[in-house]
Amino acid sequence: MPGNTFGHAFRVTTAGESHGPGNVVIIDGVPPGIPLTVEDLKVDLDRRRPGQSKIVTQRNEADEPEILSGVFEGKTTGTSLAILIRNTDQRSRDYSDIKDLYRPGHADYSFDAKYGIRDYRGGGRSSARETNVRVAAGVVAKKIIEAAFGGKVIGYVVQVGDIVAQIDDPAAVTLEQVEKLPDGSPNVVRCPDVAAAQRMVELIETLRKDQDSIGGAAEIVATNIPAGLGEPVFDKIKADLAKALFSLPAVLGVEYGVGFRCATMRGSEHNDEFTPSPEASAESSRRGLPGVPQVATRTNRHGGMLGGITTGMPIVLRAAVKPTSSLPREQRTVTRQGELATIRTRGRHDPCLLPRFIPMAEAMVAIVLADHWLRWRGQCLP
Amino acid sequence: MPGNTFGHAFRVTTAGESHGPGNVVIIDGVPPGIPLTVEDLKVDLDRRRPGQSKIVTQRNEADEPEILSGVFEGKTTGTSLAILIRNTDQRSRDYSDIKDLYRPGHADYSFDAKYGIRDYRGGGRSSARETNVRVAAGVVAKKIIEAAFGGKVIGYVVQVGDIVAQIDDPAAVTLEQVEKLPDGSPNVVRCPDVAAAQRMVELIETLRKDQDSIGGAAEIVATNIPAGLGEPVFDKIKADLAKALFSLPAVLGVEYGVGFRCATMRGSEHNDEFTPSPEASAESSRRGLPGVPQVATRTNRHGGMLGGITTGMPIVLRAAVKPTSSLPREQRTVTRQGELATIRTRGRHDPCLLPRFIPMAEAMVAIVLADHWLRWRGQCLP
Amino acid sequence: MPGNTFGHAFRVTTAGESHGPGNVVIIDGVPPGIPLTVEDLKVDLDRRRPGQSKIVTQRNEADEPEILSGVFEGKTTGTSLAILIRNTDQRSRDYSDIKDLYRPGHADYSFDAKYGIRDYRGGGRSSARETNVRVAAGVVAKKIIEAAFGGKVIGYVVQVGDIVAQIDDPAAVTLEQVEKLPDGSPNVVRCPDVAAAQRMVELIETLRKDQDSIGGAAEIVATNIPAGLGEPVFDKIKADLAKALFSLPAVLGVEYGVGFRCATMRGSEHNDEFTPSPEASAESSRRGLPGVPQVATRTNRHGGMLGGITTGMPIVLRAAVKPTSSLPREQRTVTRQGELATIRTRGRHDPCLLPRFIPMAEAMVAIVLADHWLRWRGQCLP
Amino acid sequence: MPGNTFGHAFRVTTAGESHGPGNVVIIDGVPPGIPLTVEDLKVDLDRRRPGQSKIVTQRNEADEPEILSGVFEGKTTGTSLAILIRNTDQRSRDYSDIKDLYRPGHADYSFDAKYGIRDYRGGGRSSARETNVRVAAGVVAKKIIEAAFGGKVIGYVVQVGDIVAQIDDPAAVTLEQVEKLPDGSPNVVRCPDVAAAQRMVELIETLRKDQDSIGGAAEIVATNIPAGLGEPVFDKIKADLAKALFSLPAVLGVEYGVGFRCATMRGSEHNDEFTPSPEASAESSRRGLPGVPQVATRTNRHGGMLGGITTGMPIVLRAAVKPTSSLPREQRTVTRQGELATIRTRGRHDPCLLPRFIPMAEAMVAIVLADHWLRWRGQCLP
Repeated sequence: MPGNTFGHAFRVTTAGESHGPGNVVIIDGVPPGIPLTVEDLKVDLDRRRPGQSKIVTQRNEADEPEILSGVFEGKTTGTSLAILIRNTDQRSRDYSDIKDLYRPGHADYSFDAKYGIRDYRGGGRSSARETNVRVAAGVVAKKIIEAAFGGKVIGYVVQVGDIVAQIDDPAAVTLEQVEKLPDGSPNVVRCPDVAAAQRMVELIETLRKDQDSIGGAAEIVATNIPAGLGEPVFDKIKADLAKALFSLPAVLGVEYGVGFRCATMRGSEHNDEFTPSPEASAESSRRGLPGVPQVATRTNRHGGMLGGITTGMPIVLRAAVKPTSSLPREQRTVTRQGELATIRTRGRHDPCLLPRFIPMAEAMVAIVLADHWLRWRGQCLP
Repeated sequence: MPGNTFGHAFRVTTAGESHGPGNVVIIDGVPPGIPLTVEDLKVDLDRRRPGQSKIVTQRNEADEPEILSGVFEGKTTGTSLAILIRNTDQRSRDYSDIKDLYRPGHADYSFDAKYGIRDYRGGGRSSARETNVRVAAGVVAKKIIEAAFGGKVIGYVVQVGDIVAQIDDPAAVTLEQVEKLPDGSPNVVRCPDVAAAQRMVELIETLRKDQDSIGGAAEIVATNIPAGLGEPVFDKIKADLAKALFSLPAVLGVEYGVGFRCATMRGSEHNDEFTPSPEASAESSRRGLPGVPQVATRTNRHGGMLGGITTGMPIVLRAAVKPTSSLPREQRTVTRQGELATIRTRGRHDPCLLPRFIPMAEAMVAIVLADHWLRWRGQCLP
Repeated sequence: MPGNTFGHAFRVTTAGESHGPGNVVIIDGVPPGIPLTVEDLKVDLDRRRPGQSKIVTQRNEADEPEILSGVFEGKTTGTSLAILIRNTDQRSRDYSDIKDLYRPGHADYSFDAKYGIRDYRGGGRSSARETNVRVAAGVVAKKIIEAAFGGKVIGYVVQVGDIVAQIDDPAAVTLEQVEKLPDGSPNVVRCPDVAAAQRMVELIETLRKDQDSIGGAAEIVATNIPAGLGEPVFDKIKADLAKALFSLPAVLGVEYGVGFRCATMRGSEHNDEFTPSPEASAESSRRGLPGVPQVATRTNRHGGMLGGITTGMPIVLRAAVKPTSSLPREQRTVTRQGELATIRTRGRHDPCLLPRFIPMAEAMVAIVLADHWLRWRGQCLP
Repeated sequence: MPGNTFGHAFRVTTAGESHGPGNVVIIDGVPPGIPLTVEDLKVDLDRRRPGQSKIVTQRNEADEPEILSGVFEGKTTGTSLAILIRNTDQRSRDYSDIKDLYRPGHADYSFDAKYGIRDYRGGGRSSARETNVRVAAGVVAKKIIEAAFGGKVIGYVVQVGDIVAQIDDPAAVTLEQVEKLPDGSPNVVRCPDVAAAQRMVELIETLRKDQDSIGGAAEIVATNIPAGLGEPVFDKIKADLAKALFSLPAVLGVEYGVGFRCATMRGSEHNDEFTPSPEASAESSRRGLPGVPQVATRTNRHGGMLGGITTGMPIVLRAAVKPTSSLPREQRTVTRQGELATIRTRGRHDPCLLPRFIPMAEAMVAIVLADHWLRWRGQCLP
């Protein structure tokens, strides 16, 4: 009932605070025999890491994971897998002057209202720092779906402020495009539309100089996902994916397929027509997956999910991410005693959350897919 | 692990299909001593009922609930509360000619891929018919939050096609406005902007005559919700509310507060400033709720939730609902054997899902709030 | 978190009271495609039914199940399966004179202390009447384990008062022996030791005439269970089985293998030596079960489970069942207001609970095994 | 669904192996504001620690806990509380020669059958080493029930081999008696019957010299527990307590109250009569607990629980613990390839598990009581 666990068959439980000793995740339900190393974890942890580029926070956290259990001789054992990431650059002094103030846009007040506690050390449990162990768990989830059906989850930035990327085919975007520019240099903003990426970087830099921040949107795409994952009622795959993304800090909206645009559409222009897919059927039977003939849709307005269950078409989701709430400029607020006051958040913050949001979102989507895969296998395997 | 249960402390488990004997819900965790009658359930069931107006499906389902357990001498006992709603107007012959066809936009194919079963009787478990018992459970949830802290959940239609309602203050909309027009006649489309409501009805009627359907959007507002409900990490209140809404059929997007508009905003224009709220503090202490001084925000761009926990400001959510997929006009599809075919769905369908979506959405939001209230009380009560 | 759900992958949720409209169970996680009829359910329901013989309660309950959902064209669909059993012989007048008295040995007082409610109608939710839908769920579980690996669960009475049955090989007891005497007449006490059975029946009849009741013990044996089911830490198969049996009314003790006798044993006389089992290996590979060579033990002091995981040897459990608390003779107690009083429980009660306990215990054991089978398949399938 | 989590409102999730880096527990649902230090944890950890006396294993594990999260300024925050205990004395070489052998009485074979993995390093996840973090979690649980209602949980040894302790009143046994002999020296066997304790120690020493081990039984008593905790159906408090105890290694039987002796009792001699308890009522109302008049029973054959719910009388449970399976003498077994072999387990093992079992059992009982207390408060608080 308490809220630090996510998933059912693939179950992730986390603990840790931004300024405590570190964060830890226990991943339960991992199938035995999956190769896993610390280096595997580092790949996505480095994509989430502070200080990775000039447009993200300049805190210096190495985010070195230690595998405490669940791996023996390089492979998962099937027992609970714990990963610890210690905090190293905490600088809790940054926060001492806001000890009795509620930062606007932050969880300070609502957290205090819930627990009667003001953990003023940079957000405590409410800090996005806790997402590092989610990213580690996401690596394990990605390995499960990759091994089971070649599943892939890739996220990228589609909007920063008014700059909107042009993505012709979400399912065709590659990790290479998300991480690197054509000249081989890092794609620091993680937008595969190179021209838009350049302008996004410029906008973010302008805002940082202006002591401000900016919102944006991300798109996450899952491909090679077999038809049949998800549940028809409460645990619709779209519902679990939405919960997964909304569980990340700063997300104010989630949509899939045509999303909010559906409000203006007619049924006759919205429905995707089914069409046979001999390739999908062949691939599916090669992997020993469920036996119905695989079909496809000519268009993908439905975003890969119908009736809460995957259709085999690419899953396409978008999340809106608000501008960073911590601002070095003065804002009005109240004290813990309910008095008016002003606040200026020093610390070192991301002027735009989107570049580091991508690996977090991928991790959460992969966790949901791994969970539903194991659930499907337990119940529905012919 | 299976997906027919929702919630933790207030836990709802359902079963039933559109063309079986009926639907049943078991509600577990209900506090003892809450007055509950069949008539209480009927109020919202009638708002969800087919045949309630000319712009909804003309199926004739009485939706008469029977309380099977959990109520003794007019009050809840604290033990599991079961409600059965029998199906009466099933007409399964309507579906026999589509037995081997997958209806575009429906769960037919994905359901078959999951279970290896084609329940062709109008959607079976995937039909929106299952939401009638959710609405019944929502009535119980509404009573819990009303009794505990005067909490209210009201939903209304804000968009049908290109017609967008003008709502000045979401927290001021009344159930009366949603259900009745100024002249006392039923507000069949459930839009409190009277002028927009009139145009929405006309649009829906036009589309029905055109054998088509139309999408739209709903707004759900929860007021008098105390600060402090929700969890800081996975079970953020926004995440559970999003899952709740996405678990309803046809929802393609959910947002709260400024929602997707946050993508274009700067932190300095997005953050809501805190301000003291002596009234909220007085009300809160009158009810024996958590002890921190209650604060408010001057604006409510954050939609009543920060860091996954309620702030005491009104919770404002929006959901995008796609146009009905069942169309009496011809569409292309494939057969269960993977052959090309055409389909025309007869049946009797809603040309626009929004009017009947409102009580479903209210129910799911109330269930989440009741759940988090009981969870808060168990863990955090001082 | 509320307590009316049992199991994880195979999940049973119940509702209902002894004197309400009836009991209902929602079974979630049922694999699709399992043949299931009302007649299948009746077999075990009739073994649990009141009035089945002269040594059980003479209440007259038909216990006719109605399948509300989850079965289509004679087979499970994989969606939630609901079964309703209406109460028909309630006679709530039997209880009106004890409305303000707490019956000794019953849940009346503890229930009132919990909920602040005195449901005086014969126990309400605390009545053993709720076990009828558990037995129905057990039928589904038995079908799953039978289909998956030929698993069987058989229970029988091993003790009534001082009469102890002689069972040479628990794994060799057949359902036929439990249900029929050699002459073909019903084995009303369900003890496969025919001589002991005769004396048990006589003892029970003596006690009924004496307005008293008597305790006893049951043994439940599961055979053909593959090695590898269960979890190494909290969800040890022995822990889940013990919880399952203790969740039944009147159980005061559970043991497996040598049970409490282990307290006096040395390690050198307790350990069971492993030995190869080519037959088990052949059978296991025929069924496509896990790939390690199957081994056996020469003796079965360990009762089929080591380290919380099945070994492939027969699972042997025993449960102690207390004498019926409802007695027609006068007993001292207190009123709801805390005053001393005397009570005489009229009603119609079992003088010995054991004969009807058997199908309940079998059902709970089968539910645990089905649950762990589906869990194993989801996580560990190679 | 995976099995490394226990409890609902007070939820414990663990990971770790005997020869990995260490064990970690995440405790979720802890109420905020409870004082907690590393020293608090050490008290019970030292009672469980290897090497604490001459009659337990001579491994040398300091069992130093590190609180990773959930405590701020000396008090719990209400967020997930993680505790790490590193392994220090692993000596995995002790096990290398049994790499391909299944140890009789151990989980080696069943674990391999489940996961397809042979973690030969001393049991891996199946080792009792994982219970150290359960004991740490139990300290937190004990603090919760002590603060809420003065609840106490005390365990002690009642039997080793044929030596049975004489305990006149289980509810009167003190921690002092369990831990110290009248002369102030440690009561190394944790049996409050001093004469029996002396003989138990002698028996254990004899067996160790004989390269053998011996079983026994423990009694666990919970006092000051308010009436009303537990659930009427599946989550009966007796069922959850039994699961808790059976989840510990080596437990073959659990009983409460008169336990297995009930099999020979008549209802008229088994039922405990209710009697008014003005003292309990006064204490209960002083603490603001549920409002029914508190009653007592003249005798406590029911062991403090009726209908799955506490009665306010002391909870009295007994667990049978088998003799240690690891024996330094030669035993017959099979290899991983299914060939006959002999084995001699070197390592350093407890000749009798009981003395160190006591704090483990207390911890599990306390965890169940804390869980049900928080569950009661969430749902039933008037």
